[in-house]
Amino acid sequence: MSAKWYETQGPEGDVVLSTRIRLARNLSDIPFGVNLDAAGRRQAVNRCSKAFAQVLPEAKITEMEAYSATDAHSLAEKRLISPEFADREPGTALVLMPDETVSVMLCEEDHIRLQVMQPGLDLENTWKIADMIDTAVAAKLPYAFDEQLGYLTQCPTNVGLAMRASVMLHLPALSQNGAVKRLTENIGKLGMTLRGAFGEGSAAQASMVQLSNQMTLGLSESDALQNLQTVTLQLVEQERRAQAEECRNSLFTDQIWRAYGILKYARRLETAEAAKLLSLVRMGACRGVLPVKTETVTALLTRIQPAVLELAEHTHDARERDEKRAELIRTTI
Amino acid sequence: MSAKWYETQGPEGDVVLSTRIRLARNLSDIPFGVNLDAAGRRQAVNRCSKAFAQVLPEAKITEMEAYSATDAHSLAEKRLISPEFADREPGTALVLMPDETVSVMLCEEDHIRLQVMQPGLDLENTWKIADMIDTAVAAKLPYAFDEQLGYLTQCPTNVGLAMRASVMLHLPALSQNGAVKRLTENIGKLGMTLRGAFGEGSAAQASMVQLSNQMTLGLSESDALQNLQTVTLQLVEQERRAQAEECRNSLFTDQIWRAYGILKYARRLETAEAAKLLSLVRMGACRGVLPVKTETVTALLTRIQPAVLELAEHTHDARERDEKRAELIRTTI
Repeated sequence: MSAKWYETQGPEGDVVLSTRIRLARNLSDIPFGVNLDAAGRRQAVNRCSKAFAQVLPEAKITEMEAYSATDAHSLAEKRLISPEFADREPGTALVLMPDETVSVMLCEEDHIRLQVMQPGLDLENTWKIADMIDTAVAAKLPYAFDEQLGYLTQCPTNVGLAMRASVMLHLPALSQNGAVKRLTENIGKLGMTLRGAFGEGSAAQASMVQLSNQMTLGLSESDALQNLQTVTLQLVEQERRAQAEECRNSLFTDQIWRAYGILKYARRLETAEAAKLLSLVRMGACRGVLPVKTETVTALLTRIQPAVLELAEHTHDARERDEKRAELIRTTI
Repeated sequence: MSAKWYETQGPEGDVVLSTRIRLARNLSDIPFGVNLDAAGRRQAVNRCSKAFAQVLPEAKITEMEAYSATDAHSLAEKRLISPEFADREPGTALVLMPDETVSVMLCEEDHIRLQVMQPGLDLENTWKIADMIDTAVAAKLPYAFDEQLGYLTQCPTNVGLAMRASVMLHLPALSQNGAVKRLTENIGKLGMTLRGAFGEGSAAQASMVQLSNQMTLGLSESDALQNLQTVTLQLVEQERRAQAEECRNSLFTDQIWRAYGILKYARRLETAEAAKLLSLVRMGACRGVLPVKTETVTALLTRIQPAVLELAEHTHDARERDEKRAELIRTTI
């Protein structure tokens, strides 16, 4: 398996796992997504595919129906597609670059959902890549755009910039001391949202949260990105201070070492437990407590997800998967 | 630290940690223990000490008052003296062989409580050693003995053989499946008792039980020992079968590996938790699941006891002791 973007470490990589920008675009001369049947979606997808094939010649373009359920779920677990898109509605398709930095859902909620991901905190580059692809595609397809409102989208909350920028954060110390809970409730005032990154279960266990901008009207892309950058850097500093404080507590350090010990030797691990222990180990790696590389742990957080693991290890049931998960972790860390 | 009997492995050593025989003897020409004051105890101790100094010239004879509280507790933790004797009543003394196989409490409940310990299941040798010492001492001191009843003792339940033979068993699988609980309730019918070996707390955690004969009247020493031998061998076989069965269960094997992982890396361990995890690891060692020697784990079960640890590591408080305990274990297994 060649290294993917999510297996490398980027800027502020101790706290920021990745940066993602999603753009929603629609064609102006056909109905929006919800008004299309399978045949209508196929037509829209055909036109978009041609444009993307020219703009991203290395990309693989696949009808979602051609993926197995496990393939589709593994794409969602790697956050390359939305969980809903993994339902493989007839007529939908995915454009995917080999390094998995760029994925485009065709006929998800909008005709085009372009997504660019980069490791660490890297809003500028991520935006540049997204903007470059978007500009090139715009030259080939008639985008639904209003001079007053901006980009038109299926859902009114996206109209305008039609951009959602987000960063995935690992906040074990701020989760531990209750700060994440308070932030989740109050960060809306800054026009942002904070939520668990892998869905409720294992994300909460792993202390992974996704911070994203919510405002799409009344400001430019660069303002929106600058706001996100500022708040992210504040959280990074807060998390680092909180981690340093936690690690002065020998009881907490003991918890980190125990998590490491269990992961080094357990023979069966469910996803949620593994995520919880890896989160502690990742913090131990960041603080220099454990002899482990942070990016090794980061990569494992993706590689232990059920469908990703099933594809890599050809497992057949949950028990075998738990055994393979334990084996993968103990032979890796 | 030179290897003591409890750091080596004897016959049936996977299940039987040690064999112990205690003989109670009293002098016929002075009052029994409870009727003696400190001065009376000193006189009795002086006479007994002289006899033991001749019979066991290598033994160290020490007034209990000369021991520190920690010294005395460590002797009790190693089961060389009774917990009550660790109170260091004025006038009491201890005869102790350097290899700690023989210890004699002078003026505990009886004037003489001679105790011989051997690793593994070894009733015959243990008895031979005890009998040899007892016979030699009997030639020098007037024992309280009744032709009808046998040896006379402070407590009527000991009159007769005045011998208690016991074996210390590690029964993790029979504890797990509930058999130990049933045995504890029913084994009285065979004239024996089964109870936790290190006092309630850590013994229950470590699945260590002491099986001992209770009958002292109406049978010979060799009959009593033969009964104990027979029941012990049955328990050994039952435990081995139960362990083999448990180890076919991959969930249980996982528990063994996790216990090993925690012990290899934890930075703080309290006695009870350490005992519980070491018990699992000992079973893993016996069954060949873990790359650990059984006798290493057996020795640790003694070496992690609070007072033994305090003496060896010169710790000052409970927290430091928990840290040293964790360090001792992870650098040993």
